[in-house]
Amino acid sequence: MSSNRLDEFAPIFFPQTLAVIGASSDVRKFGGRVLQATLAFGYGGRLYPVNPQESEVQGLKAFASVKDVPGPIDFATIAVPAQAVPQVVQECLEKGVKAVQVLSAGFRELGEEGAELERKLAAIAARGIRIVGPNCFGVYSPGGGITILPGAGLPKEPGPVGFISQSGGYAIRVPRRGQGMGIRYSKVVSYGNACDINECDLLEYFADDPQTEIITGYIEGVKDGPRFFRLLREVCRKKPVILWKGGLTQGGGRAVRSHTASLGGEEHIWDAVFRQAGAIRVRDLEEMLDTTLAFLHLKPDTGRRVCPIGGGGGIGVAAADACERAGLSVPAFPEELQKKLTSIIPAAGASARNPVDVANPGPPAQMLRAVMETVACEGNVDVIIVDELDMTMVRETAEVPVDIRNRLGKAVVVVLPVENTGVATLEAEGARRRVCEYYASQGLPVYLTLERAAGALIRFTGYHRWRAADA
Amino acid sequence: MSSNRLDEFAPIFFPQTLAVIGASSDVRKFGGRVLQATLAFGYGGRLYPVNPQESEVQGLKAFASVKDVPGPIDFATIAVPAQAVPQVVQECLEKGVKAVQVLSAGFRELGEEGAELERKLAAIAARGIRIVGPNCFGVYSPGGGITILPGAGLPKEPGPVGFISQSGGYAIRVPRRGQGMGIRYSKVVSYGNACDINECDLLEYFADDPQTEIITGYIEGVKDGPRFFRLLREVCRKKPVILWKGGLTQGGGRAVRSHTASLGGEEHIWDAVFRQAGAIRVRDLEEMLDTTLAFLHLKPDTGRRVCPIGGGGGIGVAAADACERAGLSVPAFPEELQKKLTSIIPAAGASARNPVDVANPGPPAQMLRAVMETVACEGNVDVIIVDELDMTMVRETAEVPVDIRNRLGKAVVVVLPVENTGVATLEAEGARRRVCEYYASQGLPVYLTLERAAGALIRFTGYHRWRAADA
Repeated sequence: MSSNRLDEFAPIFFPQTLAVIGASSDVRKFGGRVLQATLAFGYGGRLYPVNPQESEVQGLKAFASVKDVPGPIDFATIAVPAQAVPQVVQECLEKGVKAVQVLSAGFRELGEEGAELERKLAAIAARGIRIVGPNCFGVYSPGGGITILPGAGLPKEPGPVGFISQSGGYAIRVPRRGQGMGIRYSKVVSYGNACDINECDLLEYFADDPQTEIITGYIEGVKDGPRFFRLLREVCRKKPVILWKGGLTQGGGRAVRSHTASLGGEEHIWDAVFRQAGAIRVRDLEEMLDTTLAFLHLKPDTGRRVCPIGGGGGIGVAAADACERAGLSVPAFPEELQKKLTSIIPAAGASARNPVDVANPGPPAQMLRAVMETVACEGNVDVIIVDELDMTMVRETAEVPVDIRNRLGKAVVVVLPVENTGVATLEAEGARRRVCEYYASQGLPVYLTLERAAGALIRFTGYHRWRAADA
Repeated sequence: MSSNRLDEFAPIFFPQTLAVIGASSDVRKFGGRVLQATLAFGYGGRLYPVNPQESEVQGLKAFASVKDVPGPIDFATIAVPAQAVPQVVQECLEKGVKAVQVLSAGFRELGEEGAELERKLAAIAARGIRIVGPNCFGVYSPGGGITILPGAGLPKEPGPVGFISQSGGYAIRVPRRGQGMGIRYSKVVSYGNACDINECDLLEYFADDPQTEIITGYIEGVKDGPRFFRLLREVCRKKPVILWKGGLTQGGGRAVRSHTASLGGEEHIWDAVFRQAGAIRVRDLEEMLDTTLAFLHLKPDTGRRVCPIGGGGGIGVAAADACERAGLSVPAFPEELQKKLTSIIPAAGASARNPVDVANPGPPAQMLRAVMETVACEGNVDVIIVDELDMTMVRETAEVPVDIRNRLGKAVVVVLPVENTGVATLEAEGARRRVCEYYASQGLPVYLTLERAAGALIRFTGYHRWRAADA
């Protein structure tokens, strides 16, 4: 693994000076929106708009060419029409700009003419400037104060998750959705057509990056299969790599060719890649975020024996079905433990067998605490799942799962569904979200459904089993 | 199929007089909550609280015994301790009450003693009174003005969906969640231990009920397998039956025994039941509601060729993958159609191949209309999926899918995800919900993810293919 990526990519993720080429005062224009987002996000370094037609852009002095900017430039954002991009990148090279991100589309994804433009970019890159893109949304690096195109509202504080995305749309949606789930990112890179910097380079960077503990990725195609596979195997031994491979169906492969002109690849080849490399496979946006959440909050030695605690018999049946279908186990409790639990829960309408049914979707704090303590200490399970209990009504009840995890060291996962999606119940949704943010702040993973929690637990434990067996 | 169920069950679903036995002024007590919910829901018939200790209950004159109530009684809700239930039901029989719902728990789900109590109930029923339950939440019948235990806030207007639920919890959660999705129910029956009225009786009722067009069910076990199977085959030929069978895993089966003391059954037997009877199988709450929505709004002859229209390349890739994995087809568009679409959508960052990528998550109404019209008229697809476009910003854009469905008769399905689950974005969620309710009011199915939309479409089209082949 190359170890100089940290220095090499520092101008991209932590630029001291940033030029925005194609910047405009008209925020309906692409280059206007880019500069606006950069300003709104609060970039703290020196910022130089470049536009030959405007002398002042959004309150900043503008330059006709990047070569007119006084002093060195670390990084440049390029938002000019595709035909003009090679010339602009050439000027950046001559100016000594260390790296650029080309947001403009209109390259090889549009056919031969665009491919020719893109080859020109690659040739310029080879002469000493690094390129992110083209056809991308660029880089979000909260530590460096820069954000991707529509990402002005993304969190300003960094976190331990890195995200490599061939899709610009997902580069914004993943950190945006992660925000409400308490997931924070070290860096997100939308790398588009990857004319220069590609998924392998970024994987190397994140493998070495001390700010990144969990690597996630949305990939459509890889440039160099053998290199990617070797690297992935190596990186997975060091950090978890959660990967979503798009374009493995016929229609998906066709969409990949339209989008980033990558080769989608075949499903059976990718099956083997995942299996042999130890990467954690996810199949959609939700699975990616759910799995990230498990890696964020659970300990590596967490096992697969679970106890769902819910308030209703049908909910217990569904919980056990969903857990066991996913591959978790819901072991029956021994007689003695059942007796103990029976003395805590109501006599009728409840169950002490595992799943535990406390007979009430909003149980009193005292009862829930006693049940969780008993299960945590004597249940011989690895994870307690607080399953669809109403945690929004009483603060003392909501605190119980946190207390049990803190005091007894038992893994606790919370399932808090949206019970009503109507406009009239928006206030209840606000209460639900407040509880979710409280759990996120306390490091407790919260899932929307038990099915999603079970899937995340299986992928999480699967990775750590593989890593333990591999060691 | 018995055809007298409509008359037989009329006192249950449309009672002219209702006694609440065990009613109390103390709403912390079970019998107090039951009466409170009945009053809050606005039951319009004559209502008689029965309680030997109180002379007035929640502002109504109370009676010491059901036998003291003047005049006939159609239906009685029973919320007294299990031990007292047989005596109370016996009195109801002697009074001439036509049917009762026993909400009390503590019967065969608790072992031999409870089973003996339950056998007593069955024996009384055989002498001429129908029993729903015990161990249930009873009946929600908006047309009859009655609601299940915690269901005071359920919609007062009925709809075309019936729901048979062995679980009380799901009997409340399904119509509550359905509420925000625009699904309305004719009747919901939580039938618990089914000491008398069971899933077969209810299936017969809903098959004949002119108010019910779609039958849904959550079932843990069946009393009489051969009767259930014969009946299911017959009913599925008449109306769609969407069934969720709980308890098919080891842990789930154990939970079923704790909950309603039913026999869970084996997965391979149930596989055959679903396959041979033509019932629509769902595996969780979300699948049940998603599938119901498709049956509510789509035409029986809808096919499986789809065109997702989104605003972003990665979203198109994911859409095609999700559709084809589920079993839908995303046929490539012919050259000529691609050319036409290319003249409408932006030149760069878009795709006309199918999925269509309009390059902008919030496209102008005019562009979206032109794209949808072109696809609807020339696309040779059965369903257009408006995939994760932002419909909350501009009203004209939001109206386009409705207009296309209305004017061109093309099936349109909308996917509107929750992009951020944080407290700070609650207002955006309100806007999203308003658009969802608008689509629901216009009869357009809305799904949270494309995966869920695709699953619902497959189950919906699968049923109608089976029915067409079977005819």
